[in-house]
Amino acid sequence: MKIALAQINYHIGNFDQNLKKVYQSINQSKSLGAELVVFAELAVSGYPPRDFLEFDDYIDKCWLTIKAIAKKTKDIAVIIGVPTRNQNVKGKRLYNSAVFIHNQEIVSVHNKGLLPTYDVFDEYRYFEPGNEFNIINYKNNKIALTICEDLWNIGDNPLYTINPMDELFKRKPDCIINIAASPFHYNQATSRKNTLLKNVNKYKLPLIYVNHVGAQTELLFDGGSLVYNSDGGLVSELKYFEEDLKVIELDNVIGFKEKVIQSNEPSKISLIYDALVMGVRDYFDKLGFRKAILGLSGGIDSAVTAVIAADALGAKNISGILMPSEFSSDHSIKDAQLLAENLKCESDIISINDTYTSTKDSLIEWFKDLVFDVTEENMQARIRGVFLMALSNKFGMILLNTSNKSEAAVGYGTLYGDMNGGLSVLGDVYKTEVFELAKYINREKKIIPENTIIKSPSAELRPDQKDSDSLPNYDILDQILYQYIELRKSPKELVKMGFEEALVKRILKLVNTTEYKRYQAPPILRVSEKAFGMGRRMPIVAKYLS
Amino acid sequence: MKIALAQINYHIGNFDQNLKKVYQSINQSKSLGAELVVFAELAVSGYPPRDFLEFDDYIDKCWLTIKAIAKKTKDIAVIIGVPTRNQNVKGKRLYNSAVFIHNQEIVSVHNKGLLPTYDVFDEYRYFEPGNEFNIINYKNNKIALTICEDLWNIGDNPLYTINPMDELFKRKPDCIINIAASPFHYNQATSRKNTLLKNVNKYKLPLIYVNHVGAQTELLFDGGSLVYNSDGGLVSELKYFEEDLKVIELDNVIGFKEKVIQSNEPSKISLIYDALVMGVRDYFDKLGFRKAILGLSGGIDSAVTAVIAADALGAKNISGILMPSEFSSDHSIKDAQLLAENLKCESDIISINDTYTSTKDSLIEWFKDLVFDVTEENMQARIRGVFLMALSNKFGMILLNTSNKSEAAVGYGTLYGDMNGGLSVLGDVYKTEVFELAKYINREKKIIPENTIIKSPSAELRPDQKDSDSLPNYDILDQILYQYIELRKSPKELVKMGFEEALVKRILKLVNTTEYKRYQAPPILRVSEKAFGMGRRMPIVAKYLS
Repeated sequence: MKIALAQINYHIGNFDQNLKKVYQSINQSKSLGAELVVFAELAVSGYPPRDFLEFDDYIDKCWLTIKAIAKKTKDIAVIIGVPTRNQNVKGKRLYNSAVFIHNQEIVSVHNKGLLPTYDVFDEYRYFEPGNEFNIINYKNNKIALTICEDLWNIGDNPLYTINPMDELFKRKPDCIINIAASPFHYNQATSRKNTLLKNVNKYKLPLIYVNHVGAQTELLFDGGSLVYNSDGGLVSELKYFEEDLKVIELDNVIGFKEKVIQSNEPSKISLIYDALVMGVRDYFDKLGFRKAILGLSGGIDSAVTAVIAADALGAKNISGILMPSEFSSDHSIKDAQLLAENLKCESDIISINDTYTSTKDSLIEWFKDLVFDVTEENMQARIRGVFLMALSNKFGMILLNTSNKSEAAVGYGTLYGDMNGGLSVLGDVYKTEVFELAKYINREKKIIPENTIIKSPSAELRPDQKDSDSLPNYDILDQILYQYIELRKSPKELVKMGFEEALVKRILKLVNTTEYKRYQAPPILRVSEKAFGMGRRMPIVAKYLS
Repeated sequence: MKIALAQINYHIGNFDQNLKKVYQSINQSKSLGAELVVFAELAVSGYPPRDFLEFDDYIDKCWLTIKAIAKKTKDIAVIIGVPTRNQNVKGKRLYNSAVFIHNQEIVSVHNKGLLPTYDVFDEYRYFEPGNEFNIINYKNNKIALTICEDLWNIGDNPLYTINPMDELFKRKPDCIINIAASPFHYNQATSRKNTLLKNVNKYKLPLIYVNHVGAQTELLFDGGSLVYNSDGGLVSELKYFEEDLKVIELDNVIGFKEKVIQSNEPSKISLIYDALVMGVRDYFDKLGFRKAILGLSGGIDSAVTAVIAADALGAKNISGILMPSEFSSDHSIKDAQLLAENLKCESDIISINDTYTSTKDSLIEWFKDLVFDVTEENMQARIRGVFLMALSNKFGMILLNTSNKSEAAVGYGTLYGDMNGGLSVLGDVYKTEVFELAKYINREKKIIPENTIIKSPSAELRPDQKDSDSLPNYDILDQILYQYIELRKSPKELVKMGFEEALVKRILKLVNTTEYKRYQAPPILRVSEKAFGMGRRMPIVAKYLS
């Protein structure tokens, strides 16, 4: 039996467009001789549909889509993910389901048993866990159909008390199909393959895995759908960060007649780069925008952001604005201009001096002879924000935020100033990783000026300011942040690792007392296992390590 | 047996301060002859501790606190909520527990069975549901100890498949104790009492209910702890919006010797007012701030916000800034000044004209002769934002946001402009309710100028602008918004209710396409059943009704 894996970039709530893509994949699968085409988890609703799931009308629209899809299943069967209504009196009102459709009929419905409710996942907010697990019989093949997390309760990850695949295995299936919505982080492809392989090895069955691809605001889906034979040999792998469709012959997989291939193993930094480019592209595409604006400071964060944006949207759609103040160094302007030249993107200089002066003058009665402090620093950042947003509004460009994760973590940024933007490109990338991205970008051709990479980072908001005036070196800072944010280590553990106690206390206090800033930050493209935003939920008025 | 109900305003993560309050309540209970003192759900961690629960160190600190409390239980028993570690291999790593402590010993641990995971609640993110339910035997009384939601699976709310109280009832208890963290909305006290009474009526048992009081950023806890006898007669009720402690004699409750009292039934608007005052007060207290700044436009939103802030913090701690532009009407300034006089708060006028002009001049090369549009409107709002934040930074005042829920819903507000603020006071109050609040505030004495109440709402960002130029009347708008946001009605249902189809489509599209703005809004004090913020999670790059 020939099975097609359809890896699609869905758009949440855009039922017409998603249906069109599903139709195209069905037609293409038919033309390639497939007898079954497999789509991803919650393909019909898009993932994550979040609280749209609470709207009856949204669920109705999902089901109208399923009925439309069913009409196309005369000569081919379809497996596709869709929310279904729980018909029992008790429990949550929906299931996260996969339906098996054939001959214009919904033959069976399979409900997800393990509902991820951690980090960026909220599935138990909406869904009742399924507790019946049935096999699909189709063309003399017995298929164990599972949904994403259903295969994740294996080995040493005992988050759940049941194991759906153990139940399905009792019915002696010939293969496992897993439909997924598995968001990217830079370790995810590896960790996902490990988990899938553990299942293959445990049940000695071939496995077909179909994932989403594309970005849904902060969540990035990397695709990489694949097929393993029952020995754990990889026999098919779909593209990463792109839509794709492939057909495999199940009998050949079962009979070990499909050639085992080598998987791509890209570096962490190239994965992050590709994910961010896709994230920017889809954010604009799905919102119907083409042009981006950003401030170019001559520093490395705005340079890397500009390169990623140019790769995503085309350099002609990027507008880089230089906004020097009295504290800007000459080299900053030169570095920013050189970057724009290298990138071939538009760049303009707007001085903030007049507006900065008139703002200070308007406040002189209140400020009198109070000394220059963080107020005036923030003022410059906020005036830049006013200019960028004015251009954004006038010319219909989305402002890209250029903050990095290290800054976001310690609150080194101005709310309503340089924290502005529709989307944060680097907000989940530590400063030390930003440097690695710059090196990666320059690997063949010098796009980012050398001086931007080698000079000491500075916000240039007062004379001779350097980041290192108030922060430790980024290689130390990022290590502390990673241990605290990603690994949730305690101050005691950090000190045990060799970090200075006073420094640890100061940094953790900065992280915990700047939660109020991050609350109002733009959505951040997620590339790590613990990004700021929907996957990290912290109280604001707390007093812990602060 | 005498039982004390201790209703406390905890501070998340502030273990020392919380412990001090617990000690005080234990001492006070002892002095009143109590043999048992009951504290609220997750009192030790504060509620909601959110992702601090993922930090081992945080859980350790909770347990150090429990041990410290245990030392004070020589002559009195304690029931208190605390997260405990799940000792089983499988399942989430924590339970949401209540511990019964007596004679310096943790006698028993009781795990919450029903974990709210909807709206603002994320409990299954952290906790494994308990599935063993045991009775406490203390001084010849058998107590069925339940935790908040455990009593909520009654009647026609079948969110869960088990019912802890049914299990406990089999052990023939003499009374029910429920410790809770039940956040306020304007129907909550009534709906909570209904649910508690349903339990009393079903099991024919007296019920002791102990809640949190105080605000944790957006979540407001109204207190209102209470005791019912087994006939559903209210025999004790603690204060609303204040800390309180009361002692009851259980034997008298069981024997119907406690007098049945009448419950307070305040109006919706007075509840909202009290809740918002508490919300502002605690936000400042818990962050260690005393002074607030806000823009006074002469309009009703800023007027009501100022009154609430003055009530919460004292008028002397409120600084109202008038920032007229060329489009401001004379009456706006007069109205704002009159309000400040009535309130006896500081007020100042800062003209934005110079900065507005210099900003436009700096951009003239780009804007050329393009017509005045929303760009220039936003520019004014953003320059006001720059001024307010400069004063906030220089003088250590928190900026209060003055947007209302109707505006927030349709995106009628400027990001990085009037959407700024550390806290949104009225962001969960529809415009029509803001008018009711104004009337309520003026019920005895005219504080808010009449003209502020009766004039047509306007943003005054271009000549002769009125809200009604681009929005329907607020009484229509608010009805549509309420049906869509609170009740999740579809366009079809709204049209059926009599609203014009084109209008419904336009409003719902505005709501769904301005999600990106609300994502960056300040935390909003929650007073309704569906507030923007943590309880309403929407995709940004979706295309649904948009």
